[in-house]
Amino acid sequence: MENLAGLRRIGVLTSGGDAPGMNAAVRAVVRTASFHGLEVVGIRRGFNGLHDGDMDLIGPRDVANIIQRGGTKLLTARSEAWRTPEGRAQGAEHLRHWKVDGLVVIGGDGSFRGAHLLAQEHGFRVMGVPGTIDNDLYGTDYTIGYHTAVETALDAVDRLRDTGASHERIFVVEVMGRHAGHIAIEVALAGGAEEVLVPERPKPLAEVAQTVRQSQERGKTSSIVIVAEGYPGGTDAVARAITENTGEETRVSILGHIQRGGTPVAHDRVLASVLGQAAVEALLAGRSGEMVGEVCQQLNYVPFEETWTKRKDVSTNKYRCARLLSC
Amino acid sequence: MENLAGLRRIGVLTSGGDAPGMNAAVRAVVRTASFHGLEVVGIRRGFNGLHDGDMDLIGPRDVANIIQRGGTKLLTARSEAWRTPEGRAQGAEHLRHWKVDGLVVIGGDGSFRGAHLLAQEHGFRVMGVPGTIDNDLYGTDYTIGYHTAVETALDAVDRLRDTGASHERIFVVEVMGRHAGHIAIEVALAGGAEEVLVPERPKPLAEVAQTVRQSQERGKTSSIVIVAEGYPGGTDAVARAITENTGEETRVSILGHIQRGGTPVAHDRVLASVLGQAAVEALLAGRSGEMVGEVCQQLNYVPFEETWTKRKDVSTNKYRCARLLSC
Amino acid sequence: MENLAGLRRIGVLTSGGDAPGMNAAVRAVVRTASFHGLEVVGIRRGFNGLHDGDMDLIGPRDVANIIQRGGTKLLTARSEAWRTPEGRAQGAEHLRHWKVDGLVVIGGDGSFRGAHLLAQEHGFRVMGVPGTIDNDLYGTDYTIGYHTAVETALDAVDRLRDTGASHERIFVVEVMGRHAGHIAIEVALAGGAEEVLVPERPKPLAEVAQTVRQSQERGKTSSIVIVAEGYPGGTDAVARAITENTGEETRVSILGHIQRGGTPVAHDRVLASVLGQAAVEALLAGRSGEMVGEVCQQLNYVPFEETWTKRKDVSTNKYRCARLLSC
Amino acid sequence: MENLAGLRRIGVLTSGGDAPGMNAAVRAVVRTASFHGLEVVGIRRGFNGLHDGDMDLIGPRDVANIIQRGGTKLLTARSEAWRTPEGRAQGAEHLRHWKVDGLVVIGGDGSFRGAHLLAQEHGFRVMGVPGTIDNDLYGTDYTIGYHTAVETALDAVDRLRDTGASHERIFVVEVMGRHAGHIAIEVALAGGAEEVLVPERPKPLAEVAQTVRQSQERGKTSSIVIVAEGYPGGTDAVARAITENTGEETRVSILGHIQRGGTPVAHDRVLASVLGQAAVEALLAGRSGEMVGEVCQQLNYVPFEETWTKRKDVSTNKYRCARLLSC
Repeated sequence: MENLAGLRRIGVLTSGGDAPGMNAAVRAVVRTASFHGLEVVGIRRGFNGLHDGDMDLIGPRDVANIIQRGGTKLLTARSEAWRTPEGRAQGAEHLRHWKVDGLVVIGGDGSFRGAHLLAQEHGFRVMGVPGTIDNDLYGTDYTIGYHTAVETALDAVDRLRDTGASHERIFVVEVMGRHAGHIAIEVALAGGAEEVLVPERPKPLAEVAQTVRQSQERGKTSSIVIVAEGYPGGTDAVARAITENTGEETRVSILGHIQRGGTPVAHDRVLASVLGQAAVEALLAGRSGEMVGEVCQQLNYVPFEETWTKRKDVSTNKYRCARLLSC
Repeated sequence: MENLAGLRRIGVLTSGGDAPGMNAAVRAVVRTASFHGLEVVGIRRGFNGLHDGDMDLIGPRDVANIIQRGGTKLLTARSEAWRTPEGRAQGAEHLRHWKVDGLVVIGGDGSFRGAHLLAQEHGFRVMGVPGTIDNDLYGTDYTIGYHTAVETALDAVDRLRDTGASHERIFVVEVMGRHAGHIAIEVALAGGAEEVLVPERPKPLAEVAQTVRQSQERGKTSSIVIVAEGYPGGTDAVARAITENTGEETRVSILGHIQRGGTPVAHDRVLASVLGQAAVEALLAGRSGEMVGEVCQQLNYVPFEETWTKRKDVSTNKYRCARLLSC
Repeated sequence: MENLAGLRRIGVLTSGGDAPGMNAAVRAVVRTASFHGLEVVGIRRGFNGLHDGDMDLIGPRDVANIIQRGGTKLLTARSEAWRTPEGRAQGAEHLRHWKVDGLVVIGGDGSFRGAHLLAQEHGFRVMGVPGTIDNDLYGTDYTIGYHTAVETALDAVDRLRDTGASHERIFVVEVMGRHAGHIAIEVALAGGAEEVLVPERPKPLAEVAQTVRQSQERGKTSSIVIVAEGYPGGTDAVARAITENTGEETRVSILGHIQRGGTPVAHDRVLASVLGQAAVEALLAGRSGEMVGEVCQQLNYVPFEETWTKRKDVSTNKYRCARLLSC
Repeated sequence: MENLAGLRRIGVLTSGGDAPGMNAAVRAVVRTASFHGLEVVGIRRGFNGLHDGDMDLIGPRDVANIIQRGGTKLLTARSEAWRTPEGRAQGAEHLRHWKVDGLVVIGGDGSFRGAHLLAQEHGFRVMGVPGTIDNDLYGTDYTIGYHTAVETALDAVDRLRDTGASHERIFVVEVMGRHAGHIAIEVALAGGAEEVLVPERPKPLAEVAQTVRQSQERGKTSSIVIVAEGYPGGTDAVARAITENTGEETRVSILGHIQRGGTPVAHDRVLASVLGQAAVEALLAGRSGEMVGEVCQQLNYVPFEETWTKRKDVSTNKYRCARLLSC
């Protein structure tokens, strides 16, 4: 394809919470750039490293054998410095020094805010790639890392089901999702959970306890309740309400950070590969200030602002299906 | 929802090659039926069992704790008897005897032909659910079992990459897909393979060997070539061509039937749950003679005939991406 | 072998915390008994079910396809009733009613106390099989479930390492082991952890913090500290001490009940098979009041009392090796 | 510990077929050496690299984050050059040039022959560490890589059981083991196989077929027969004999090279760590010309010659147990 933007060297960084598949996305960016004759600078520790000038040239062989690695070899970090115009100006200075004329930012909406400011204040071409396990980004059906996090949480739920069934216990399991219930609903449906609680659909705890009680009256001797991290009131309150209403002991399991790591599943590697390629080709085609996602298996471009001003709701169909099938 | 079709008792069977997630689909059919006040008859060994009258009533507790099991508890088999009008008439007789007035068939296009004939010749309401690892069914983005088969094959490729890289060897890996390259392309892209060969895109073997040689000239010391089972000429011919053209030894690995089994991944359990529910609700709404699939995360109904008369092509974008990123 | 004890029908139960491989042990008991011409009664919910008379005859086909299942199909429970002589007398009555003349108890030292009392007070022949993830039983190199729990915890640590390395963070990870550090030491050594804390080797928290600081001074940017559940003072205190002494944020991850479930690894299935067979053959040979374990790959019989009066220490070699190799 | 041998710099190489855990062993060698004040030279591609002088200094940070990686970062290869005295003399020359005064060789008995010749002909101190998936080395209960290979093969057998049970089929599964049946027996016992065939215990094929037929007569509708790679006559002959004697179709599955790769299980990482440490400390203590293994959880030293002149038999107990429990 034609290099409409006249690019010669682009930068790439990963930012925000790490997500399985970020390495695959970096690999795709580096190799696509190389394929189209561009050089690539790898920036370490996200905007923090951009601010500090912590970067180096990387080539296709440097990203060999990382497609299957969890985490991010470019590292990631929060950046206080990037919150100030001075901090961003210094980052822009480093980019000019390194002769970087385009940037790919892999991360979530917080990272895209940082990218947006860089583009606006300093005129750099920037494209975003959605990398976050929470799947809470508008403009893409799925984010990189989401499917792996779902599998990790589901594996844990399968294990808890084994022990829960053997002891005829009730487990309340907290999965990740500070503002969104995507992981919770997918895991609940796939794990055959008796109830699922997500921030997007709050309900009275008495109703939750009743669901569990009814499920036991129908002959179920163990139950699993999935709670998204960000559910109002918190996971312990859910467990207490169940105990109070059913008289049954409950066990709480907080899955936590294990959901961030691990070898990415095929879906995340493929999505990362496709979107990493697309981000570079979008820069070549002259695009900027957008995240590239995938909707209905087609590339989809949305302005950075929409990733934090618009919301992607959880699937009502899956939410209902999870509840119906736990009967 | 209203029971427009006046159904009281439905049957369910799994047919053709087994696929991970079939149990989740059976569970969804049984529980959705129960939720809507219908009884369910579970038919064993596909159309073979329908012909033989090998069936029993099953309820919501009978499908407890199977959502995570590979294979199919209803068993599956090829049926010679079903190829004849007499055989099908006998199956219809059994259905009438059991007072079954609707049927859900979980399987591939061969199974839908059998379902189609039953519907046409004997007036039964039948809905199909796409269950096959090959993902080669028109009318649905994905089939139940496909994502699990991809993960199983990918895990094997990751392992082969470990040993291939240590010995600096070339591996030619055959994955399933008698007529379709969906698994091959997904695994190649996710596994970082150097080349992928699918029946839909045949190419001269000399070109394949050249790709491998060039990849070695770029500094790669090991290579993986993914070949779909149904690739013209076969996997051994590919290996021979590479050896002849590069002078390098190659190892062939046929992954085979392990790709059929195993705990289904979340995606397959969720798809099976959603489509199992949808098939029952379609029967209730008066639909028949169709497969229900999912396209762009929406339910999609296609007449049985289209599942074998129309083709779903492999993704050209992913095919190209796999090749570009192996640079 | 000869049936020296003149047995005709034996019982089997699982008791205490469930452990992966208990199903494999039950299968081995049932099939070995069948092989030697004995009938088997499966008792549900441990001593609770024995007290309640909750049992049934089971045969070789009833234990088909369970060797790979986590949890225990016979269920398990705590039993208040069994703490009283009256409760145990009632259980003995049920055994006589069912004509059970030998019993295999699969569990930990608490379960063996219950078995011991039954043998002493009511003259039943009882053999014990060590089933507990903690590996804290004297008289056997390993307990059934231990190796699976180690793999589950190690998989979690590998995942935490991915995210810890990406964010350059310190993780404090609590693994199971209320009184014993076997899991902790094995996981620390296999996971390349920077420090491991077990109840058998308490040390000042300041020293722990110093180890972490030194490891960072040697260039490590992320650290993992493994803490056994029963470590004096608890996991949170460890994390606080590290933060106070290094000035670095720490994240705590409590792995919890996921370590109890899951498909057993080969080692646990094999050990369960060998010991299940051995327990039945010990009853046939006239033994009673003992646990059968494996030491140096040979069967080893110890009186029940020794399982709670004697201690098995953690491996000093592995403990030292874990620390030396984290340099 | 005291450096009795006056060592200052040691070399390490991996040789023969790669095995999961070799990286953990290399890490242990490097870090133990560093702990005791020694420098380490990493030699690439086994004796081939030693012959070619393909080596470099490596330190503790170079082996960070490899304990969990399959394969070997030092690479491995067959070496024609090492078969000649001239070839070995050239290797010795390189070692002298690099001032290497001790060597750790990680591999199987073929590798130990090469090590033995180097020690004898050129007076180098050499210690061996048993790294091979086949577990066929005298002098150690287990070899590094064996337990991971067993898990990989067992996972495949679990998957085949899923599809075999669904289709009521007979599967004949070939696992690795050119001269030894350790993997086959462990997998057969853990996988609940109906029959297992190992080179150490040949039997008439008619008897095998009869076992399968009898197992079907007892009500089993699917069967799994495990065959070690080196079984006389080969796997296909086994399958044909079963088909001819039972009239049932059989499917053959050759698991092949996937058994070599993958993240090592805890057991292999721990064994590799312990033996890597022990090999270096043995050199320091003045030992040479031996392999260090583990017997009954204690270090065990055997002269190199015994690794190929003495045999380790398969476990008769496990072999019998596998057959008894398949009843």
